[in-house]
Amino acid sequence: MASDRHIVGQRDDPEMPRFAGIATFALLPRLEDVEHADLAVVGVPFDSGTSFRPGARFGPAHIREHSRQLHPYHQIHDVYPFRNLQGADAGDIGVGPYDIAQAVQTIQTSAQTLTSSGTRILALGGDHTIALPLLRAAAAAHGPLAVLHFDAHLDTWDVLHGATLWHGSPFRRAAEEGLLDLDHCQHVGIRGGIYGPSELEDDRRAGFEIIRSEAFQERTAADIAQQMRARLGPGPVYVSVDIDVLDPAHAPGTGTPEVAGLSTREFFTVLRLLRGLNIVGGDVVEVAPAYDHAGLTGLAAAHTAWELLTLMGLAMFQP
Amino acid sequence: MASDRHIVGQRDDPEMPRFAGIATFALLPRLEDVEHADLAVVGVPFDSGTSFRPGARFGPAHIREHSRQLHPYHQIHDVYPFRNLQGADAGDIGVGPYDIAQAVQTIQTSAQTLTSSGTRILALGGDHTIALPLLRAAAAAHGPLAVLHFDAHLDTWDVLHGATLWHGSPFRRAAEEGLLDLDHCQHVGIRGGIYGPSELEDDRRAGFEIIRSEAFQERTAADIAQQMRARLGPGPVYVSVDIDVLDPAHAPGTGTPEVAGLSTREFFTVLRLLRGLNIVGGDVVEVAPAYDHAGLTGLAAAHTAWELLTLMGLAMFQP
Amino acid sequence: MASDRHIVGQRDDPEMPRFAGIATFALLPRLEDVEHADLAVVGVPFDSGTSFRPGARFGPAHIREHSRQLHPYHQIHDVYPFRNLQGADAGDIGVGPYDIAQAVQTIQTSAQTLTSSGTRILALGGDHTIALPLLRAAAAAHGPLAVLHFDAHLDTWDVLHGATLWHGSPFRRAAEEGLLDLDHCQHVGIRGGIYGPSELEDDRRAGFEIIRSEAFQERTAADIAQQMRARLGPGPVYVSVDIDVLDPAHAPGTGTPEVAGLSTREFFTVLRLLRGLNIVGGDVVEVAPAYDHAGLTGLAAAHTAWELLTLMGLAMFQP
Amino acid sequence: MASDRHIVGQRDDPEMPRFAGIATFALLPRLEDVEHADLAVVGVPFDSGTSFRPGARFGPAHIREHSRQLHPYHQIHDVYPFRNLQGADAGDIGVGPYDIAQAVQTIQTSAQTLTSSGTRILALGGDHTIALPLLRAAAAAHGPLAVLHFDAHLDTWDVLHGATLWHGSPFRRAAEEGLLDLDHCQHVGIRGGIYGPSELEDDRRAGFEIIRSEAFQERTAADIAQQMRARLGPGPVYVSVDIDVLDPAHAPGTGTPEVAGLSTREFFTVLRLLRGLNIVGGDVVEVAPAYDHAGLTGLAAAHTAWELLTLMGLAMFQP
Amino acid sequence: MASDRHIVGQRDDPEMPRFAGIATFALLPRLEDVEHADLAVVGVPFDSGTSFRPGARFGPAHIREHSRQLHPYHQIHDVYPFRNLQGADAGDIGVGPYDIAQAVQTIQTSAQTLTSSGTRILALGGDHTIALPLLRAAAAAHGPLAVLHFDAHLDTWDVLHGATLWHGSPFRRAAEEGLLDLDHCQHVGIRGGIYGPSELEDDRRAGFEIIRSEAFQERTAADIAQQMRARLGPGPVYVSVDIDVLDPAHAPGTGTPEVAGLSTREFFTVLRLLRGLNIVGGDVVEVAPAYDHAGLTGLAAAHTAWELLTLMGLAMFQP
Amino acid sequence: MASDRHIVGQRDDPEMPRFAGIATFALLPRLEDVEHADLAVVGVPFDSGTSFRPGARFGPAHIREHSRQLHPYHQIHDVYPFRNLQGADAGDIGVGPYDIAQAVQTIQTSAQTLTSSGTRILALGGDHTIALPLLRAAAAAHGPLAVLHFDAHLDTWDVLHGATLWHGSPFRRAAEEGLLDLDHCQHVGIRGGIYGPSELEDDRRAGFEIIRSEAFQERTAADIAQQMRARLGPGPVYVSVDIDVLDPAHAPGTGTPEVAGLSTREFFTVLRLLRGLNIVGGDVVEVAPAYDHAGLTGLAAAHTAWELLTLMGLAMFQP
Repeated sequence: MASDRHIVGQRDDPEMPRFAGIATFALLPRLEDVEHADLAVVGVPFDSGTSFRPGARFGPAHIREHSRQLHPYHQIHDVYPFRNLQGADAGDIGVGPYDIAQAVQTIQTSAQTLTSSGTRILALGGDHTIALPLLRAAAAAHGPLAVLHFDAHLDTWDVLHGATLWHGSPFRRAAEEGLLDLDHCQHVGIRGGIYGPSELEDDRRAGFEIIRSEAFQERTAADIAQQMRARLGPGPVYVSVDIDVLDPAHAPGTGTPEVAGLSTREFFTVLRLLRGLNIVGGDVVEVAPAYDHAGLTGLAAAHTAWELLTLMGLAMFQP
Repeated sequence: MASDRHIVGQRDDPEMPRFAGIATFALLPRLEDVEHADLAVVGVPFDSGTSFRPGARFGPAHIREHSRQLHPYHQIHDVYPFRNLQGADAGDIGVGPYDIAQAVQTIQTSAQTLTSSGTRILALGGDHTIALPLLRAAAAAHGPLAVLHFDAHLDTWDVLHGATLWHGSPFRRAAEEGLLDLDHCQHVGIRGGIYGPSELEDDRRAGFEIIRSEAFQERTAADIAQQMRARLGPGPVYVSVDIDVLDPAHAPGTGTPEVAGLSTREFFTVLRLLRGLNIVGGDVVEVAPAYDHAGLTGLAAAHTAWELLTLMGLAMFQP
Repeated sequence: MASDRHIVGQRDDPEMPRFAGIATFALLPRLEDVEHADLAVVGVPFDSGTSFRPGARFGPAHIREHSRQLHPYHQIHDVYPFRNLQGADAGDIGVGPYDIAQAVQTIQTSAQTLTSSGTRILALGGDHTIALPLLRAAAAAHGPLAVLHFDAHLDTWDVLHGATLWHGSPFRRAAEEGLLDLDHCQHVGIRGGIYGPSELEDDRRAGFEIIRSEAFQERTAADIAQQMRARLGPGPVYVSVDIDVLDPAHAPGTGTPEVAGLSTREFFTVLRLLRGLNIVGGDVVEVAPAYDHAGLTGLAAAHTAWELLTLMGLAMFQP
Repeated sequence: MASDRHIVGQRDDPEMPRFAGIATFALLPRLEDVEHADLAVVGVPFDSGTSFRPGARFGPAHIREHSRQLHPYHQIHDVYPFRNLQGADAGDIGVGPYDIAQAVQTIQTSAQTLTSSGTRILALGGDHTIALPLLRAAAAAHGPLAVLHFDAHLDTWDVLHGATLWHGSPFRRAAEEGLLDLDHCQHVGIRGGIYGPSELEDDRRAGFEIIRSEAFQERTAADIAQQMRARLGPGPVYVSVDIDVLDPAHAPGTGTPEVAGLSTREFFTVLRLLRGLNIVGGDVVEVAPAYDHAGLTGLAAAHTAWELLTLMGLAMFQP
Repeated sequence: MASDRHIVGQRDDPEMPRFAGIATFALLPRLEDVEHADLAVVGVPFDSGTSFRPGARFGPAHIREHSRQLHPYHQIHDVYPFRNLQGADAGDIGVGPYDIAQAVQTIQTSAQTLTSSGTRILALGGDHTIALPLLRAAAAAHGPLAVLHFDAHLDTWDVLHGATLWHGSPFRRAAEEGLLDLDHCQHVGIRGGIYGPSELEDDRRAGFEIIRSEAFQERTAADIAQQMRARLGPGPVYVSVDIDVLDPAHAPGTGTPEVAGLSTREFFTVLRLLRGLNIVGGDVVEVAPAYDHAGLTGLAAAHTAWELLTLMGLAMFQP
Repeated sequence: MASDRHIVGQRDDPEMPRFAGIATFALLPRLEDVEHADLAVVGVPFDSGTSFRPGARFGPAHIREHSRQLHPYHQIHDVYPFRNLQGADAGDIGVGPYDIAQAVQTIQTSAQTLTSSGTRILALGGDHTIALPLLRAAAAAHGPLAVLHFDAHLDTWDVLHGATLWHGSPFRRAAEEGLLDLDHCQHVGIRGGIYGPSELEDDRRAGFEIIRSEAFQERTAADIAQQMRARLGPGPVYVSVDIDVLDPAHAPGTGTPEVAGLSTREFFTVLRLLRGLNIVGGDVVEVAPAYDHAGLTGLAAAHTAWELLTLMGLAMFQP
């Protein structure tokens, strides 16, 4: 990306208060309003893979609305994420709610269209089912991926109510399809209920190491981040964030909330220690606005996306 | 039904406050605790046919919880609905959320199992997709049915996002399958948006006459009820109530709320004028608790079910 | 009351926005800040007589907070309610929640202390149990009372869970104690569930005529008001308003909400046709803020109190 | 407007569910994406004129989000509002919250820029202060205007807390500036508190006739609509809707809610009888989302705007 | 308990989604559906002892509804709590709200009936008053008890508003009655307001040692758990959890919330270090659903009960 | 302050439950009911300086209502804050919302009136704009002040939308006016977004050192408190608390919530380590009740005020 090309940044109009105007993510330009994006956010309002509380189809709109306060400078990394990179909001991928298999196919196709010219994308869900087609698109470009998966749940389960494609199976399917680098995947924040130890065995076979939520109680962020880096390795990484990795106190608006999760501060502290990872794609999923209050979950998801975009940008263009 | 058999009524234990105990609908006995039920409530927690706000899968639990105050005597009809009839709560029909066609099949089979020995059932949804299998079960027992359909929306649409089975199509599918008596179906409360007049034409072909919500503004309930009776005729009637027939002020907890609807008082006034209809089955659907407040929608749905059960009982056994 | 004495009106300080300052009811002076009040509001934060959703103990504070917008002029009656009468907020009667009998005694004593020097009082509940001691105090001053009772429920029941004093019994107890003029009592808005016709018979014996909620569907307000006046007669009247007379859409914040109730406009239209009734006391009860939203119930209750105070003032001093 | 030019309608993509995509009002094209708009919606997220509950600055975003279900065909008028007219969403007018006078100036200038090429605009507020600059812009194009003002409050007050420009004064200022046709203005739905009869006198001097909210209790919509037409006359009309004209049960999300208002059905029934009025501009104001629940107020406002746009379109191009 | 007898576990029907069916606690069988239970949950919907926000009478229903996601395997303890033990949901103890003394008696009798054949019970409140009769029942079977009491408040107070039985006195009464082993009781999480140091002195006399909430700020869980074990000793332990031990951010739905409490993760981390305690009974109280949001408090209470049941089960039958 | 004068403490009437009576802050006497106050709370219901979510004008009423549970004894400091000092609630300063400059002037004048006779005041906001006039009043009495500022945001910005007086500028203005001791000011809890490093430079010039929110993740409270004391020095200190210093999970009801903040326990732990600071004035601002839930933010703010008052009292009169 040539430094002399024109970059359209986040909206910066002193006449326009942040609460004014139709919101794009972080007030970035729409994809259709820029020539090419290096890094784009795209919504995937699909929640038919949900097993408990549905509603994540309204997640992208909710996250955008709560991203109005994202400022152009990142204080911890001391960078302007979208000064040298063209960022954009690519809008939403249109998927109907009635056919999961077709939706997965459409999401994959749309994602590949976006990434085909080199754009890296961060998806806003939607439920976790969408991670599978996004992983397919990312793996098509980058080969088998290390996955850093923040979640209360394993999501390496097999079949539920007859379905192989649902929000609890994306990483199992991805492993089966060869999309994952099985030595370099990791869950962080796990604490949801399981039926027995065989699920943990299956999970290991799908390539994952587990850092449970309880680890954050007494280990330092630095220590945990070091374990992450060690596991993820130097290759291309896909970061998938189920917002229920956060404690319900911090993110009530989600479909399968689990008590005893991470605080937003614990989460962002660890995320910020991951500078240097070669993150080639990611998602922030499972925001169900009907259960949110005062925008807590919307804000948490918007900031999560912002942290990931900053890391992705740093990986693309070290300032 | 012999008048000398033992009837188990609604819970009536002076030691048990109404807020105590695990709630069945109206504190009726569980189906498994009575020999045979004449009239049973059954939950159908399925909402994968929803096109906008999902969440009606939690409807049955919400309605039961808000049915605790239903007393055994109906003042307007001057009857005890469950004194001469054995009522029961049949629990929920188990249907997974991932395969609409299979869910429709399961609901039909389960409903037929319930009705095979003469039990009439009132279903608590769930979204409106469930009306199709319920109509199949009712028509299997009673032949083509007059349908009295309270709703803000026509629900005689064809295909959406590639699906033929969704919550906007049950009555079109039912008409196509010959389940409806095309001269005797009627919508009441219609006001939702449409794409053009051809939808109204399709609707007529599916056998429906329309009484719009606005009719309640200036016509009397008696006048409207007379039109209903005239249209429905003397044959077996299936009554389907989408709770969004009510104004969102009265029923906020629903998936596709439409302003300018009926008040609960308007609705129940008309319902109570339908005594004598031979109602052989029915449903109360589209209660989405995540959008409810202070139990308004739960209460409205519980009372709707109560009014329908009373009418159904009166049709089975005139006191 | 001499017209030349100094009257302290509602706060009227152009520097003080209505949302500012510690709220008294309608920004009236505190009783302790005026010599004598002709008409006083008093809170009774007691809800231990509640049979379903508790919380009305927080009613007085909630109603005061939502009474900030009550302006000094009443447009329909074309009067300034507190220009010739000294109004006041007498604060709350202190009653513990653990002993219903003692609470009833304390409320009675406190009410009589307030009324002993000629002050007429309007109580803000609290649950409906408080009507009994208030009726005792009013009857002590005025003899047997006509009661105009707005409610979804009869409240002439006898014993529940062993208790004779609870929020469903105040008018039965009052009738038994000879506090009521049995030819001149009336319920308006009734629609709650009952166990059978004998409850209606008991109710008649307690002196009440019933105007059900459904009457408001097709009768005019003038017609209903005429029936009220005919029943209530020319003697002293006590007006008791359970806020659940309103539909839950208009007053969600209450303990035993019943669908199919009155709208606030229907209610106030009828109330305003009662000018000339000799109202000597009253209450507005069953506001349970934990179930309220956006202040709907608080506003409805504050305006109800305002309408009653205006009528009470008109009865005391015709302008 | 030539019938052969290309009209871009509301989004109509079978792949895109209504909940998907970044919402413009009614999924209309953005103004910047069409050559010219005949009729445009514009947001004015300004609420510094509010005297009680603030928050209407978030109104435009909330209304847009709740306008996703607006379908292209209007059943009562039997028209497609945007088939022959180019509609558009012009985004928001950027105004800072700290200087009311400057904001009023900016809104006026921006509105005139929009209308200078013949576009008629409907503004989404924001508080009622914005009606003044919008009236200035409309009067600049059309001369003194008849105003049809739906509101619980008069909004012809003078000074509050030292300010002449606030949300209770726009129509007084407009009258003083000669923007109003003083024989043809009307308030509908009035019921808010006042300090005394002189306010009604001032109101008459500002050119307004009053139809109080209570009129809807017993008069028919046809009768009321006839009075409206008689008052408004044949000239250009500006329609201003404060969402608090609706009862708080129907529109809780507003700044100065007043009980005993209109239902949405009453409101839309009357609005639909106004076909033929030459509406040249208008606004829908005072939507305060922080007090809304389940989108009730957002939906009511979106539909109000839709009804007004349809009437405006009919006035511009009779089909 | 013989290992060859048939155990009915939590519902495990692949056709039944977790959101379907009438909920018992953790989808355990009802007590009436099994021969004998080793370990039973029982609801006690009584809140008349509440001193501030009432509503805990709806606690049992709320907790059951939020216990649907409790899976049969406990990952930290590596056990299936109900594989070798028969668990059951015993429904609710019926107690009227009007007579605290009688309610306490009824609860005691009912609890003893349940425990008489060796069943250990965990009660779901209801307010903390219920701990007294439950302690009586437990002490009747096991002798004086060590009490592990998680709470923001001491609950060793004497008289409030004339009452000796209320939710702030159960442990004082229990101490006076000789139900407690005064050398082995402990409060954890204390931070609520007191009137002075004499209350702390009274508390010590009632047998309690205090670990304040602030201890969790800088001490490790292991360190705190060690202090707990040291204090509680080897004898039979009753564990009483007032959900307000949690911070209001984690458990807003409670009657006397106190800021600066425990997170769910801190709480469960400590609880899991108590394996081996001989817990013979317990309660989870003070869940007031009207103040809950998105089920946070319901989930926290359901998981608390689950952790306690697992510990109780481990104490009964070491795998 | 002479120890033999009569002190009126917090209300302590065994007949009055804490939920009863019109609330003053902590049930302290009103200023008008005592001769002189040593320490007074005063509300400043002004929010026109807000840049995002408004509504803090309702803050003082909300905080008072949630201060009912503040007990007279402080356990950590082992003192009765208002036993030797006369405390009072001075009500609200009346300021209109339309003219920021005038409001700032009025607040300053009112504050100086209160402090002129030696009363120290703690203000309840309102938005952060009010800190400027309060600092002016405090500096007038005590000279340049060390400021301890808890906030997610710097609030040393210059101009926004043309305004110099808004809620993001008070400390810059104060520095410019010479009100601050530039060597002894400190922000704690900072994490909000900025446009670039120059804002940090400006901030340093305004006299502030920054302790970011992240510091609380791994440093001990004692360590942080030591840094605070070192920076603040021995002179008079003004403590300003924007409630958004807390995490939105702990204080959702605020105008510009920022994730990753402090817990209430972290905050109060540090506050309690500041005993001995000579705090001469302070504020607790930015409580926006429309976004609160279950009183979380109200409780947090009430307790914050209580902690500050205790410290202020200790500084005035060491026990």
